[in-house]
Amino acid sequence: MTINAESGIAAIDAVFKTDPRELSREEILAAHHGGKLNVTASVPLVDTRDLSIAYSPGVAEVSRAIAADADLTAEYTWAQRLVAVVSDGTAVLGLGDIGPRAALPVMEGKAALFKQFGGLNSIPIVLGTTDVDEIVQTLVRLRPSFGAVNLEDISAPRCFELERRLIEALDCPVMHDDQHGTAIVVLAALRGAAATMRRELAPLRVVITGAGAAGVACANILLAAGVTDVTVLDSRGILVPGRAGMNPVKAELAERSNPRRLAGGEAVALVGADVFIGLSCAKLPEQLLAVMAPQPMVFALSNPDPEVHPEIARRYAPIVATGRSDFPNQINNVLAFPGVFRGALDAGTTRITEAMKLVAAEAIFAVASDDLAPDRIVPSPFDPRVATAVADAVAKAAGR
Amino acid sequence: MTINAESGIAAIDAVFKTDPRELSREEILAAHHGGKLNVTASVPLVDTRDLSIAYSPGVAEVSRAIAADADLTAEYTWAQRLVAVVSDGTAVLGLGDIGPRAALPVMEGKAALFKQFGGLNSIPIVLGTTDVDEIVQTLVRLRPSFGAVNLEDISAPRCFELERRLIEALDCPVMHDDQHGTAIVVLAALRGAAATMRRELAPLRVVITGAGAAGVACANILLAAGVTDVTVLDSRGILVPGRAGMNPVKAELAERSNPRRLAGGEAVALVGADVFIGLSCAKLPEQLLAVMAPQPMVFALSNPDPEVHPEIARRYAPIVATGRSDFPNQINNVLAFPGVFRGALDAGTTRITEAMKLVAAEAIFAVASDDLAPDRIVPSPFDPRVATAVADAVAKAAGR
Repeated sequence: MTINAESGIAAIDAVFKTDPRELSREEILAAHHGGKLNVTASVPLVDTRDLSIAYSPGVAEVSRAIAADADLTAEYTWAQRLVAVVSDGTAVLGLGDIGPRAALPVMEGKAALFKQFGGLNSIPIVLGTTDVDEIVQTLVRLRPSFGAVNLEDISAPRCFELERRLIEALDCPVMHDDQHGTAIVVLAALRGAAATMRRELAPLRVVITGAGAAGVACANILLAAGVTDVTVLDSRGILVPGRAGMNPVKAELAERSNPRRLAGGEAVALVGADVFIGLSCAKLPEQLLAVMAPQPMVFALSNPDPEVHPEIARRYAPIVATGRSDFPNQINNVLAFPGVFRGALDAGTTRITEAMKLVAAEAIFAVASDDLAPDRIVPSPFDPRVATAVADAVAKAAGR
Repeated sequence: MTINAESGIAAIDAVFKTDPRELSREEILAAHHGGKLNVTASVPLVDTRDLSIAYSPGVAEVSRAIAADADLTAEYTWAQRLVAVVSDGTAVLGLGDIGPRAALPVMEGKAALFKQFGGLNSIPIVLGTTDVDEIVQTLVRLRPSFGAVNLEDISAPRCFELERRLIEALDCPVMHDDQHGTAIVVLAALRGAAATMRRELAPLRVVITGAGAAGVACANILLAAGVTDVTVLDSRGILVPGRAGMNPVKAELAERSNPRRLAGGEAVALVGADVFIGLSCAKLPEQLLAVMAPQPMVFALSNPDPEVHPEIARRYAPIVATGRSDFPNQINNVLAFPGVFRGALDAGTTRITEAMKLVAAEAIFAVASDDLAPDRIVPSPFDPRVATAVADAVAKAAGR
């Protein structure tokens, strides 16, 4: 079968999707009617006695108890285990800066996944400001309302400063999922891919396109996991010390990555590369797949449109992954964030450390490892073992 | 039965409660374990197709649609109909300034009641600041996250300025329930009490103790409903023009109330009064009940401890009401706020007007009016007709 790279995409879509029924725009919009979340009471409210317990006068006993001992907040309110899913709408999926209202369907979905996969309550907080000082200030004021912060869809490089400052300002777990959730699952997937191919992780040559939130975090976790040859590109090319047009985060990463000090674009970086990790939305031309090392691994993770169509990538690479649920090997943050937050909250820790992220990736890989195959390098998001394994690993790393 | 006013309270409690089973502190605390709210998904999330619709890649369609037309937020997210229950914890129940964490059980209860009685989703927002400027600024930044604001347990006179400024700053319904919810239900109850006694509303002499949030709002709604002789007291006595120690809100109310220009304390105000409305937490000595007009009405509304025990009040007054669910005639905001917000949101209005408050009170009275009795001057909070009647009346007043 010879398919022109452009006209063939639709035809491939029709045969390759794991679910043969096409999703129509109408069906998707209909499913979102009225939003995707419900708040319900976890106590009965059907008679006077119920009302006396949950509200007046009974609730006064609970308020008095917490006023006397603030630690009881954790026992008698939902806040300690409530995750605020926070976005300013500046980097929504691959759609860019579309604002807080357009980000809300994503945040509602995230909150739904927190409950479904992590058993955690979660509320979307979308902000009418993109100023980092104001976002920090706002969340500090909201602090008594929640127990953890999942930052989401916030543009780089602001997201790096915002996350750092929130971690300093708030005595609760804070994680920018687009950075670390993605990085954890990419590491788990790369462990799975390497094991499938019976290859070691450390000597792999890895090329990451995209030096935003996900690209930087993926480079960092791969370096932390022992991969020695990681090269990162932004829209202007390879990050290399001294290159023009790099923000401080990129400049710092350039120092620690790209050990062969390559300079140029994808055509330079991909020569002999074992792994392509696309986190940029930029299309990867098919001819560049041909210059990679034999038997490469291709992770085309941009959502909703992968950098290269998986079926095209499969002509060159035995292992192909995307970020989409309708192709095999979905590298989806849902494998990580529910368990990471659940573990951190179960352990009562106030920080999500680098060690916790590494053990979370290892836990995901461990679940996949008894059934690895080229189209099963990560577990299914619906594998009930995943969140529990991640939560246990994170809680253990937190010293619970 | 002769009961000493102090030692007899416990004995009266034992026989007078509508529910004979005592509520123990242990039972109340146990019911609050882990908090009282759950966030759940209103869409299925059991297979890959579900995940493709609710999250990636499907959700991108919804975000794109809203980015192109912000009005679609109302259709495809929960925010437009989500009530933020906001408190800074400065005036929690009758317990005072006990802070945002101790306020949280009350806000969770309120959110539970919004769902149970109004069918509305609601989230508690408790704030780590008591500065009015900062609270306004915070809610303006959070504006894309919700569709209405229920202010709760915020101390006077700050609450007046805060509500006024939020109404100006936010293009959505804002109501301080301790003011207006209470006022609506008090007016409905007074209409019910007067009808029971076959008396007119307008000529009643009304004394309100407490010139905080609820006292000021009750005075205002009674004056708006045509009651001509309303006298309000704070802890220093009757509000009368020229008196020392009045903040601007009290000074302005003094001009519009107390037509006989009484000066002094409760002993002066209650002589010949037809109605006592206690909103102050201060105890009402039994001997002052004796100086009221014949057949008075006593609303002892402080929570959790009424100004005078209902059974003592009943020796003097044929109609006695409290704020508690364990005595007859509970004057509870739950009769008003679910329907008021539901009606405002159903109508798509951005303001809750004085006219809406008056029709809300009338709607509550109308539900009670076919079954009035001295111990049934208001409907039961569990009467399913109430919220619907209030919502319909408010929506109609909003010009739906």
